[in-house]
Amino acid sequence: MTEEYTSSTHPPLPPTTEDFRFSWLRLLRSRRVGPVTFHRLIAEYGSAQNALDALPEVARAAGVKGYKICPSPAIDAELKAAKAVKARLLCLGRAGYPPLLAQLKDAPPLLWSLGDPALLQSPVIALVGARNASSLGTRMARALAQELGEQGYVVVSGLARGVDTAAHLAALDSGTIAVMAGGVDVIYPTENTSLAQDISRRGLLLSEQPMGLTPQARHFPRRNRIISGLASAVVVVEAAAKSGSLITARDALDQGREVLAVPGHPFDARASGCNMLIRDGAQLIRNADDIIAALPPLPTRVTASDPQQQLQLDAPQPPSQPPPQRRSLRETAALHLQILSRLGPSPTAEDQLIRDLATPARDISPALTDLELEGEIIRQPGGLLSRKTDQ
Amino acid sequence: MTEEYTSSTHPPLPPTTEDFRFSWLRLLRSRRVGPVTFHRLIAEYGSAQNALDALPEVARAAGVKGYKICPSPAIDAELKAAKAVKARLLCLGRAGYPPLLAQLKDAPPLLWSLGDPALLQSPVIALVGARNASSLGTRMARALAQELGEQGYVVVSGLARGVDTAAHLAALDSGTIAVMAGGVDVIYPTENTSLAQDISRRGLLLSEQPMGLTPQARHFPRRNRIISGLASAVVVVEAAAKSGSLITARDALDQGREVLAVPGHPFDARASGCNMLIRDGAQLIRNADDIIAALPPLPTRVTASDPQQQLQLDAPQPPSQPPPQRRSLRETAALHLQILSRLGPSPTAEDQLIRDLATPARDISPALTDLELEGEIIRQPGGLLSRKTDQ
Repeated sequence: MTEEYTSSTHPPLPPTTEDFRFSWLRLLRSRRVGPVTFHRLIAEYGSAQNALDALPEVARAAGVKGYKICPSPAIDAELKAAKAVKARLLCLGRAGYPPLLAQLKDAPPLLWSLGDPALLQSPVIALVGARNASSLGTRMARALAQELGEQGYVVVSGLARGVDTAAHLAALDSGTIAVMAGGVDVIYPTENTSLAQDISRRGLLLSEQPMGLTPQARHFPRRNRIISGLASAVVVVEAAAKSGSLITARDALDQGREVLAVPGHPFDARASGCNMLIRDGAQLIRNADDIIAALPPLPTRVTASDPQQQLQLDAPQPPSQPPPQRRSLRETAALHLQILSRLGPSPTAEDQLIRDLATPARDISPALTDLELEGEIIRQPGGLLSRKTDQ
Repeated sequence: MTEEYTSSTHPPLPPTTEDFRFSWLRLLRSRRVGPVTFHRLIAEYGSAQNALDALPEVARAAGVKGYKICPSPAIDAELKAAKAVKARLLCLGRAGYPPLLAQLKDAPPLLWSLGDPALLQSPVIALVGARNASSLGTRMARALAQELGEQGYVVVSGLARGVDTAAHLAALDSGTIAVMAGGVDVIYPTENTSLAQDISRRGLLLSEQPMGLTPQARHFPRRNRIISGLASAVVVVEAAAKSGSLITARDALDQGREVLAVPGHPFDARASGCNMLIRDGAQLIRNADDIIAALPPLPTRVTASDPQQQLQLDAPQPPSQPPPQRRSLRETAALHLQILSRLGPSPTAEDQLIRDLATPARDISPALTDLELEGEIIRQPGGLLSRKTDQ
């Protein structure tokens, strides 16, 4: 049993689980290390500790002055805060990590969880939609969540007002997961405090962010990729033409998830995003049966009552995606600089950027994901990119 | 210039136009001669007059006792009634006959028209939907009809209450065609008398039925095939799950027409037919631009101001479909009897029937169309057939 999920030619000595968690958290919380970079560093250096040792020098070579890895007391504090609320850490490649999420290129290396971890092994459907949902929208979210629950599906959403709240409430009894944009212990919006407490007792709260982090605007798109990543299908219950739910839908398509949408009359502006998705090929959904009919075949449900399967779970699981390409951090840093130098506050088309850089799209795409996750660039609908400006 | 659109090896002497119209009308009005049988008789006997001469003997051979062709005074009366209201006869294969309709296997050989015949040479869109339309449905019909009119499209519908009425009214200025289920001079429903008069003056009324015929339930499906046959696309504006508009949509697909539908919220039962169509592959429509984007390329518009094109129009036009298969009337009559003997009032699946008869589907399909048009059998949703019972 090696420390990391990617074997190196010189396996390090087996660390204790606490060392493992500590070094992973510390690498992940270090500046400019997002999930994609994390995976590349692990692939390149064989373990989180080795990557931490190399990181200051790698950053210096990439032109970043005075780079420091995350200080050790910050990790102590995070672990202590988690212990206080009884949050548990889920590690990519280890037992308990949600299997569909593990398939993402930018899967969170670590997730804090509060509640019933068994829900992550059930089939999951995401219900998303407008915060200012109409009465039709919230009624539909409620009906879908309840019917899905009755049929054995866990409902994941984002704890927001409107559609999210209606979906969580209706699925409390059958199983619901709320993915938080900030720390798993920071409830947003505050009006959902009681709902979040109910979910932490009867469902599951999840977050990739540090304990105690108050969510900011840039955290929501990152959070949304986890909502769709957990689920085999994303149902857009109600969404206007230019709404966050449509960005989630686009991301879900990129992740290979089914995107489903509830139609509405064209005179109802709150349905225009859903109608647009259906015109673009999303399946039209009228009820839970339509959702279930649109799903890919179910993965085998793993239950704790099957000792053989439990045994397999306890062994480290290799990630199901191919190992990340071994592009050196130096090359990656140079590509990041090249990309950023060509982007400004006004939007540029992604394919134009790829042509300008004369670099294969397969190299640029992960770099863009990385920069987006780092908050350096902003993706806009229609394949447009712009550089984040400091307010 | 031959009398009929299908040449025979022994062309008859050129008849006068009045003889031609008279014999076509008489053949078409003879018992058991629907459009498909009409086309086959013309193909087999070379002219309507020859077919009329042969018909009693052919019927006797098929086991029909005491068959008589339509009496001559009935045709005199029909022509006189038409003259009284200034209705004009359009003949398949002749100038002025609507070009898209001519492509149907069961194209009406003759159509009575009242109003502006030039509308038939413009691109035509059908708007259909519920009689008991909601306020959203009629508003949508109005908006679509008006926008389509502004863009140069003629709107065809069926003069019914609800969606039809709203569509005709909004397209009166730009051009609208109402296809009647009864005679072109019999207005149904009577509450649309004033609208029908407006259409006869500024638009066009059309019917394949005899002058003076009061429409009965069985005439409406036959009428609906003309509405969709005239148009390059059929837009279902609002329709419940089991509605006549869905039958029109199915027929339109069989005719190779685009079927488009306006979505609605799943909680609105009056949208359920449209949502079902979209799930089955119909394009989702939000406005007239969506309709126009979904159309096949426009046919060249023929205008009376172009003498060269007008000249071409005056020459007889061969039907654009391949000539009907030369299956003898005797064989056809035998097949009809075989089919009818296997059908009862409870529904039978069409594919089951085809298997039972051990006859190729390409032979049975036209026979079924014929029997359906003759009112002998009834098609039901889901490919089911039943025999019409006399009330």
